[in-house]
Amino acid sequence: MANMCGLWLEDGQLRLRDDIPVPEPLAGEAVVRVLQAGVCNTDLELTRGYYPYRGILGHEFVGVVTAGPSALEGQRVVGEINAVCRECSACRQGRPTHCENRTVLGIVNRDGAFAEYLTLPAENLHAVPGNVTNDEAVFTEPLAAALEIQEQIEVAPSQRVLVVGDGKLGQLIARSLAPVGCELLVVGHHEEKLQRLETLGIATVLRRTSDGSTDQKGPAPDRRGDEPQSEPGPALDRHFDIAVECTGNPAGFETARRALRPRGTLVMKSTYAGDLTFNASAAVVDEITLMGSRCGPFATALKMIESRGVEVADLIDARFALADAVAAFERAQQPRALKVILEIG
Amino acid sequence: MANMCGLWLEDGQLRLRDDIPVPEPLAGEAVVRVLQAGVCNTDLELTRGYYPYRGILGHEFVGVVTAGPSALEGQRVVGEINAVCRECSACRQGRPTHCENRTVLGIVNRDGAFAEYLTLPAENLHAVPGNVTNDEAVFTEPLAAALEIQEQIEVAPSQRVLVVGDGKLGQLIARSLAPVGCELLVVGHHEEKLQRLETLGIATVLRRTSDGSTDQKGPAPDRRGDEPQSEPGPALDRHFDIAVECTGNPAGFETARRALRPRGTLVMKSTYAGDLTFNASAAVVDEITLMGSRCGPFATALKMIESRGVEVADLIDARFALADAVAAFERAQQPRALKVILEIG
Repeated sequence: MANMCGLWLEDGQLRLRDDIPVPEPLAGEAVVRVLQAGVCNTDLELTRGYYPYRGILGHEFVGVVTAGPSALEGQRVVGEINAVCRECSACRQGRPTHCENRTVLGIVNRDGAFAEYLTLPAENLHAVPGNVTNDEAVFTEPLAAALEIQEQIEVAPSQRVLVVGDGKLGQLIARSLAPVGCELLVVGHHEEKLQRLETLGIATVLRRTSDGSTDQKGPAPDRRGDEPQSEPGPALDRHFDIAVECTGNPAGFETARRALRPRGTLVMKSTYAGDLTFNASAAVVDEITLMGSRCGPFATALKMIESRGVEVADLIDARFALADAVAAFERAQQPRALKVILEIG
Repeated sequence: MANMCGLWLEDGQLRLRDDIPVPEPLAGEAVVRVLQAGVCNTDLELTRGYYPYRGILGHEFVGVVTAGPSALEGQRVVGEINAVCRECSACRQGRPTHCENRTVLGIVNRDGAFAEYLTLPAENLHAVPGNVTNDEAVFTEPLAAALEIQEQIEVAPSQRVLVVGDGKLGQLIARSLAPVGCELLVVGHHEEKLQRLETLGIATVLRRTSDGSTDQKGPAPDRRGDEPQSEPGPALDRHFDIAVECTGNPAGFETARRALRPRGTLVMKSTYAGDLTFNASAAVVDEITLMGSRCGPFATALKMIESRGVEVADLIDARFALADAVAAFERAQQPRALKVILEIG
């Protein structure tokens, strides 16, 4: 059996291994040779122990099918990350992404995309249109996650929407909301990142922190006890119908909560390291809705990329070979990083 | 100017005063002679400093109009508690209960119902049908709050709904949901309270705590560090489409959160003393919706009481004269208490 190279996480330690057996497909599965893969904040969280995962990381990819149904062989594909049972109550009730028996590519009990090959159920794969580049296709998974918001709630053109966070997720969410025509504002800590949105015609507001801390998930290493500049300020407070929290840190959550008008909706797009503490009484009195939001529609995301309804490829700010994957992770953790790509195949 | 008797809260201290001027109505207001008033957990919270209120407490009442529009004079009425401006953006956008300039009877900048007289805008008052007793009418405000859930989300007969808490609010919520025909279960700590629901045909499950602590708001005075029996247990976990949190304590919130299936809805009906800490990542991964819920539709509540669609009067378990209002509060704070009524006029 041939071996392959992959980025392995075990006990919180990342290491490049070249002794991983090339995966064998189970019934219904296809084998995909990975071309490119993207580093997500969830990958960074996993290295910090957010979830006790052991195996190959990575869930954002574009690749080529090397074994599987004949219609797919040789096809360039992207893939939905939840491998599901189709039998549990969640599956039967039409919520397959919440399958009780699911494995999740590079996240739960399924080796991921930071390797030369991966396997997924063939039904998870979507052929990439010829006019979509690899640099674009690799954003299908995170763009689908951004679009999940519009699967869950209606965003009307008349609504005021605040996106909290200017990182790669905030960028994709803002870009996916802009075509709706809503009154959109992005608040972030990074002038250069916000400038990218301004260039696309999306309004932004810069909130500096006293210590230059970022919208990265989890507390910044040198964060101070108080962050007066991270307060939403009177101009944002109680103004928005919808606030999307994309920072994964409590200050971002508080900014989003305070920005909502009564009966507004706070969409939680980020996972949080540890528990989150918030003023629940204020949420009750203001009848706020908090809504968790995760994986979304791949077909819609691919269509938006193909039609250039959403620009994505400019979010790539560094590329690394798989052999330099550990360095890629170091880069991805820098406050100013956007999407870091592993060039694999 | 005549004086009246009322229960006054100041600096966290309750005291009966007989030197309070009878209120003069402003333009558009009516004066109501209070017949009965009910003690709510919010009143108990206010005495604990949940909100810095100073004045006469009380917001659940039935009374008789002594001055106001001629059509109302002499009428027996109940009253919506938010006095609103009709001019702010919340009012103009159809959310008057969230008026930015509101006063709230016995809660925010408006003297309340634990007194011989109160004033409210005449538009807030609803005439009580002749076949509705005072003992029933005094439940209009909390029943309306229970019915607010059904204003916010559709509860379908096919859905599984868990009500967490068997106190007076949980009782009203369970009773207001029962006519929907959903698969309803109430979890609580008090056998006697649950028995009242069983008598009405509502399924219940008893969860004892190791120290006999209750579903009262805030931590019980002698609460222990761990509460193994307050865990929802495998039978409740991840089973319900909707969970309604009526306890106002973190253990109740956790029971509700864990009881939800992915994409379920957690309705927060109680305010919380202090901040609430929860596993936000689990809510994101499971795409849970948390929804704050407060004041509701008086007209619907009155109709349900009149039609006996919801039984309420059996929830009264003690009556006190206004002169004994401080004792009434002591009674209302006992774990086994349900609705405590002040007989005023």
